[in-house]
Amino acid sequence: MNKEVYLRQGERLDDLERNGLCIIQHPDRFCFGMDAVLLSGFAAAHISLSGGRALDLCTGNGIIPILLSSKTDIDHFTGMEIQQEAADMAERSVKMNSLTGRIRIIKCDIKEAAEYVEAASFDIVTVNPPYYKMGCGIKNPGDSKMISRHEVTCTLKDVLLTAVFALKEGGLFYMVHKPQRLSDIIFEMRNAGIEPKVLKMVHPRLSSNPSMILIEGRKHAGIELKIESPLIIYGNDGKYTEEMYSIYGY
Amino acid sequence: MNKEVYLRQGERLDDLERNGLCIIQHPDRFCFGMDAVLLSGFAAAHISLSGGRALDLCTGNGIIPILLSSKTDIDHFTGMEIQQEAADMAERSVKMNSLTGRIRIIKCDIKEAAEYVEAASFDIVTVNPPYYKMGCGIKNPGDSKMISRHEVTCTLKDVLLTAVFALKEGGLFYMVHKPQRLSDIIFEMRNAGIEPKVLKMVHPRLSSNPSMILIEGRKHAGIELKIESPLIIYGNDGKYTEEMYSIYGY
Repeated sequence: MNKEVYLRQGERLDDLERNGLCIIQHPDRFCFGMDAVLLSGFAAAHISLSGGRALDLCTGNGIIPILLSSKTDIDHFTGMEIQQEAADMAERSVKMNSLTGRIRIIKCDIKEAAEYVEAASFDIVTVNPPYYKMGCGIKNPGDSKMISRHEVTCTLKDVLLTAVFALKEGGLFYMVHKPQRLSDIIFEMRNAGIEPKVLKMVHPRLSSNPSMILIEGRKHAGIELKIESPLIIYGNDGKYTEEMYSIYGY
Repeated sequence: MNKEVYLRQGERLDDLERNGLCIIQHPDRFCFGMDAVLLSGFAAAHISLSGGRALDLCTGNGIIPILLSSKTDIDHFTGMEIQQEAADMAERSVKMNSLTGRIRIIKCDIKEAAEYVEAASFDIVTVNPPYYKMGCGIKNPGDSKMISRHEVTCTLKDVLLTAVFALKEGGLFYMVHKPQRLSDIIFEMRNAGIEPKVLKMVHPRLSSNPSMILIEGRKHAGIELKIESPLIIYGNDGKYTEEMYSIYGY
């Protein structure tokens, strides 16, 4: 199959180096990064159920469901994305990877999720959300990269309210975010009824402050958090550590 | 001076290996551990003000103010302790170390702090509180060690309400606690008006889950948290790491 036929002008095809999977990206738009790879690895390492249904919020070009389709045996994925161009890229990447039977992409605002999916119908929600609060320095809120990075169209609270709506009782929630938002995350998760259960810090090096956090929550669960050993990305030799290779599949 | 004259039956004198300081402990009661040493090191490393007044809640035998008296130049410490025997030991340790001019011990319930100290009169509050929630397995709530370890006489919320009462605007709060309580800690700190500002995980080894967390809060501060690099207690050689020696004074 000539995968190039799925590409539009300016787009490129990136090899995910996993089961022959590829993904369509546009250099001028938001492209997936290590955070998406870590989130999928963290979720895959913690999900023990077989089958089931997963919802990915702010799915962008669909990187999370596409990666999780090969890392887990989840039966069905729905990905929601508000930006038309990204949703369209995700749709074409799903077709290109012959995943139309497992992954459904919906172009919608997650705040209107109830119009598209049933309440309490998902076992898992994943999200790599916009990280930063809207500040005074925001120049162009219509910019695609801005929408992916800043809380222009959805806030942390919007993400959590949609997640708690979509999750079954006891359903699992996986998110990657920035360390400086940890207090907001824990406060808003508990307020929304998604109790934090597992937290993992990701440090570029052992001596660095963390650059990302990975968190698991559970809908209406008891209150006890497990903090895991830190994930260190680079060893003293400047190469990926063993854990990066083994758990995160780099 | 013969420090032994300060001891009562069954008590022992422990050398703090710092400026000749000693502390009175009783083997049958709660004795200070690494958590107290780490809390004092963490606070000392983050406090930049000169002079000022500090309040230590649940002070036990007074270990935190005694250690901080040598690690900082804070002018005055007040230590509050509900248990008569522990408060009495703390009082004698203060005298023995000739610190009566700097450290005042009050035997009281921290929930009644307003009867003993003025509102908004402290620059710093420190606390090594009871870690565990009261559960069904609690056999003897009158036991001294039980009161030190479990939330028998004061809860996390009590600690935070007393801290916010005692702190000046912008005043600093330092606490050591257990990782599994992190969600409660962040949720209750924000509710009480003490915003979490710095968080540090303490791992026995790099590959272990953390055994303790160290947290700095600030009264009525803005919401951005800094998570630091993890403190690893033991290196691969089984000895204390360099950071344990340099920052924490082991």
